[in-house]
Formats: sequence, C-alpha cells, structure tokens
Amino acid sequence: MRATVMYGAGDVRVENVPDARLAEPTDAVVRVVAGCICGSDLWPYGSMEATGQGRRMGHEFLGVVEELGSEVRGLRQGDLVVAPFVWADNTCDFCREGLQTSCRHGGLWGNDLDGGQGEAVRVPQAQGTLVRLPVGADSALLASLLTLSDVFSTGHHCAVTAGVSPRTSVTVIGDGAVGLSAVLAARRLGAEQIILMGRHKDRTDLGREFGATDVVAERGEAGVERVRELTGGDGTHTVLECVGLRPAIETALGVVRAGGAVSRVGAPQYTEVPMDFDAFFRNVTLTGGVAPARAYIEELLPDVLDGKIDPGRVFDRVVGLDDTPAGYRAMADREALKVLIRP
Amino acid sequence: MRATVMYGAGDVRVENVPDARLAEPTDAVVRVVAGCICGSDLWPYGSMEATGQGRRMGHEFLGVVEELGSEVRGLRQGDLVVAPFVWADNTCDFCREGLQTSCRHGGLWGNDLDGGQGEAVRVPQAQGTLVRLPVGADSALLASLLTLSDVFSTGHHCAVTAGVSPRTSVTVIGDGAVGLSAVLAARRLGAEQIILMGRHKDRTDLGREFGATDVVAERGEAGVERVRELTGGDGTHTVLECVGLRPAIETALGVVRAGGAVSRVGAPQYTEVPMDFDAFFRNVTLTGGVAPARAYIEELLPDVLDGKIDPGRVFDRVVGLDDTPAGYRAMADREALKVLIRP
Repeated sequence: MRATVMYGAGDVRVENVPDARLAEPTDAVVRVVAGCICGSDLWPYGSMEATGQGRRMGHEFLGVVEELGSEVRGLRQGDLVVAPFVWADNTCDFCREGLQTSCRHGGLWGNDLDGGQGEAVRVPQAQGTLVRLPVGADSALLASLLTLSDVFSTGHHCAVTAGVSPRTSVTVIGDGAVGLSAVLAARRLGAEQIILMGRHKDRTDLGREFGATDVVAERGEAGVERVRELTGGDGTHTVLECVGLRPAIETALGVVRAGGAVSRVGAPQYTEVPMDFDAFFRNVTLTGGVAPARAYIEELLPDVLDGKIDPGRVFDRVVGLDDTPAGYRAMADREALKVLIRP
Repeated sequence: MRATVMYGAGDVRVENVPDARLAEPTDAVVRVVAGCICGSDLWPYGSMEATGQGRRMGHEFLGVVEELGSEVRGLRQGDLVVAPFVWADNTCDFCREGLQTSCRHGGLWGNDLDGGQGEAVRVPQAQGTLVRLPVGADSALLASLLTLSDVFSTGHHCAVTAGVSPRTSVTVIGDGAVGLSAVLAARRLGAEQIILMGRHKDRTDLGREFGATDVVAERGEAGVERVRELTGGDGTHTVLECVGLRPAIETALGVVRAGGAVSRVGAPQYTEVPMDFDAFFRNVTLTGGVAPARAYIEELLPDVLDGKIDPGRVFDRVVGLDDTPAGYRAMADREALKVLIRP
C-alpha cells in the first residue's frame, strides 16, 4: 500500500510500504477515507535530522473497518470509524479517568505503526480506540468528523482544562487550526468574550465566525497591553495557548487574570515556563497538555451530526495521497491553514 | 510602642516606633496578643541587603480591638480578632471570588504599615480584614487560632487548589510548618495516602501525627523513586510543594501522577519551572500561589474551636517581643520549627 514517510526536514515522500494487516487479536485494519496534516507535523518538517529509515506520518484519520481481530467487540466490517490521535484500550484506570493519552496499553501512531497519512492503518486496541460514526463514507460531514480525531478535540481540551464557562472571559493565543478550534470550543461552552490573538486576517476572520468577539493582531508586550485594555486592565479568566512557543506562553501569562488559568495544548517547543513570583502572587494556574481526544468524541459528536458546530471549516485545502508532500509545503508556507488528505 | 524591624540579613531589632493609630475611617487599631515568625521571613533574614531605614516585620497576628474607625461595622472594642496575612476589603470582585490576596483595595503588612511582630497594628480595611474569634484572649486555643492567619490557611490553600479529596493520593514536599500544615489539611479533606517528604525526624514525627502515612527522607532522584515505589510506579494525584526552591518543584513534577496537579505555596525563590514536554504529555497542572487566608478562616474556624484539628502544634517555641531576634536565629538554625511571639 501507499503511505507517507518523512525522511528529514522538508523531505516527505509517499511510497510503497507493507500492507496494513492484523497482528494481534485486538487489532483492526481500517481503510483510510480521510486523513490530514497536523500543525505538530510541521515541527519535524522544519527540523528533523535526515534519516535513511524514515518515519511514518499521520495521526488523524477516519475510515472504514476492513478487518477485525477475533477479540474486538462492538464493531463490524464496513463501519465508518474515527480514531483519536493516541490509541488506547479505554478500560484502564487512566482511560476511565478520561486520560486516554496515558493509557497503560496505548501509544502513538507512526514510527513502528502505520500512520494516518496512508491508504490503511493497523489499529491496536481497536475496540477501545475506534468510535463508530453513524454516517456513510460519503457524508458531507466528513471534514468536521475528522476534526474529532485531534484538532477540535484538542481545542476543546484546552477550553475544558482552562475552565471555560459562560462566566469566564477567554483569550485564545494563535490563529492556527488549533487556535480556531479553541475559539469554537470556548463559544460552544458558553464564553461570551473571546479575544483571539493572531495576525493572519483570513484566519482571524474564520475565528470571528467561530465566535471570537475581539481580534488582537499585536504581539509581545503590545499584545498583552491590548488584551488588558479590552478587559478593564485585568486580563481574562482563561487563556488558551495554542502555539507551543516560548513567546506564546509568556504572552499567556501576561494576559491571564489573577486567579485564572492558562491552558496549553501547543506541543511545547520550550523546556521552561516563567511561572515566577508574579504568577505565584496572582495565583495563576498552568494546565492543559496533550488532549485525550478519545475522552471527548462521544460528547462532541452529536453537535457535529446536528450541524450545531462545523469545526471542519479549518480545512481549506484537500489533496490526494500522492500530493501530501505539496500539502506539507503549503502548510509550512502558510498558504494553507490545514490540509485534508483523501487517499 | 515596640516593634520588630529588619535592617538586613541577620539583623533584626526590636525598637521604639510610632504608636499604631487610626488614619482612615476604615481602620482599626489592634493590640497584638500573639504574633509569629513566618518561614518566608527567613528569606530576607538570609539575604536582605543592609538598609538604614529598616523594614517592619510580621504578617501573622491575632489581638484585641483597641480602636475602631467610624466606618467599621461588625466589630467592637475588646473583640479578639485574627488578621489574614494580606488585608482586603472583602467586598471587591476578587474578594467575592475568594481571592482576597488580589483585593482591589488590599495589601501586605509591613513596609509603610505596622507589622504583626509588634505591640499593636493599624489595620486598614478592618471590617473586611479582621475575623472575630468567639473566645477570650486567654484561650488555650490561641496558637491554633493564630495559624489561621497564614500557616494553616496556606497549607489548606495548597491542598484545595491541588484538588485533594478522599479519592486522591498526596505527596507533601517539605517538613517545615507549612508542609506539616498541608499534611493536616490534606487529612482533614479526607486523603488516605499522604506521603511526607522531609528529613528532620522531630518534624516528620509531628507530620505522622497530623496524618502522614509515609515519610520519605530521600531527596532528588532517590526521593522521586521512593515515592514512585510507594505508589505502584505512578506518583500521587496531588503534590503539595511547600518549600519554594527549584529542587522542590523539580521533585514535585517527578512525583506527580499523569493527569495530576502540583500546587505550590512556598514563595518561589526561582523564576522558571521545568514544565517541559514530559509534563505536557502527562497533562500535569501547576497551580497554587499565595494563599487567600481570609477566604478560609470562617470555614476552618469551627474545626479549631471544636478541637478537631490542632494546627497550633507547629509552634514549638514561645518568646516575648524583646526576644524576637533570638526567635529568628532559632528558626534560621532549625532549632525551632516555628516561633510564637507574645508581646
């Protein structure tokens, strides 16, 4: 079968790889109907050291169940399913607490496993991992359903862990697909003031449609000041940090109200956070982390099926599998916000 | 009147200062019955640059109301009252949210104001700040009531913000008075496994009486390993960091369970926290901060009055006001855990 392999910074190829097949009785094989490229794929795309072996790519996908291991219950051949970006048994203590990203028998796609940017995927712990979608593979909702795999679930995790509610004001840092998803998630949770910090007008325009009430294009100290102006000097109760770079976390700490929370879902490209005496004296909480998408899919699914939310609008380009390398380039060059792949 | 003034590292004096007197109609003057020395007083005691002007000391006290400004309601001359370590109007939006440390009209004792290590204190925003105690100035409970001013309320804040409950395991880092208070607070909130990290046997013995189920004397990596052994490899759901030094926060991040929370109440003597990719992937929350003692006094008071808890046991030495400098030395040399001052 064909699948996407990264060999180093800027070097993404679509090649022949061994066919996905059952290895354990708890596995399934899913034929991918839609996958996509994640903002986090751009970190290795920007900096990965060249390797002869390559790395299988893609951790967001939905598709049709093609084969099922003998121990998998609750799924049938032909079911349309979505996979969260971390696979999990969904029965261990961490899973029962809603932290499937720390599942005792789970893991990440790619590397030794198939990735979602390919024709098919062997899915470990299929019964716990996969969620059946009550639509056909030709549904008009596929793009929005695909976002449950990662990007919208991640925005939702950010809003939930920050404590967004109708009583909290919100700043969202970052106008990438995760930031826009966080805006939509905050609006869905009832937030009335949502300040989006971003400087790409086409993206912040979508952010406004998703629910942003204010857009702040300034960065750094000027951005912090502008958010403070918009909030009577106090900052917002919750801050959703959707970038992952040190300046973003610094801005987050600058715009959070005393007693408030910064949640971060951008994979951190830093190792230290300035949680200094000021943050301490203001009782600022730093929370968030990698999103247990699996914990949220059933909760978010009805709103997508009912058309109440349309998170799939973050996809502004669709490519075939062979054009995946061009998709990476387009996202890296900021020509595309998020690229959907139809193998 | 006499009061304690710090002139530099190791240089604490008790001297004549202007008498405490009403300056605003919202003030009260309180004659101090009991004050004490805080672990945080030891930071300047260890490192303060010499100054000719000096700095008034003490932010924990209880005493008798001597004079009341014309706008103060709800208090009478002769009332025994306890003051939280940050004064506050208790009516602004932050106060109503229980964050009196961020009160819009509040502040810290000392500096331009009287401190609690003296004969009397002018109390700004007296109506909001002071809490009446339904006992006499000769009560046997004074030491425990005094801990509501800061040290026990701080331990309680640490436990509350970390989310301690009967369902959470707990690690407390630090066997100082705040750490021991955090043990007692965690037990009061129903925690069943409480691991106390500390190496001073007399202190950890008191910790066991307060509710610690395990004591870990090892530090650093060895300490982290020991806590992990005690928790099946996972670490604890909540970690109460009661030291304020960088190694303590590193240990905290090492012993917290995935999805868990580290709360810090030790005034941070660091500016950066290693909330790196590991903490991100494990969804670790960093919370806590300076404790809004005022928010907790009414809630904790009945348990002290009923004798259910006896947080005053952290005081292991009592001095007269003139012996306050010796009290500082004793705490700095770890000869005393916490020193109570009877002016």
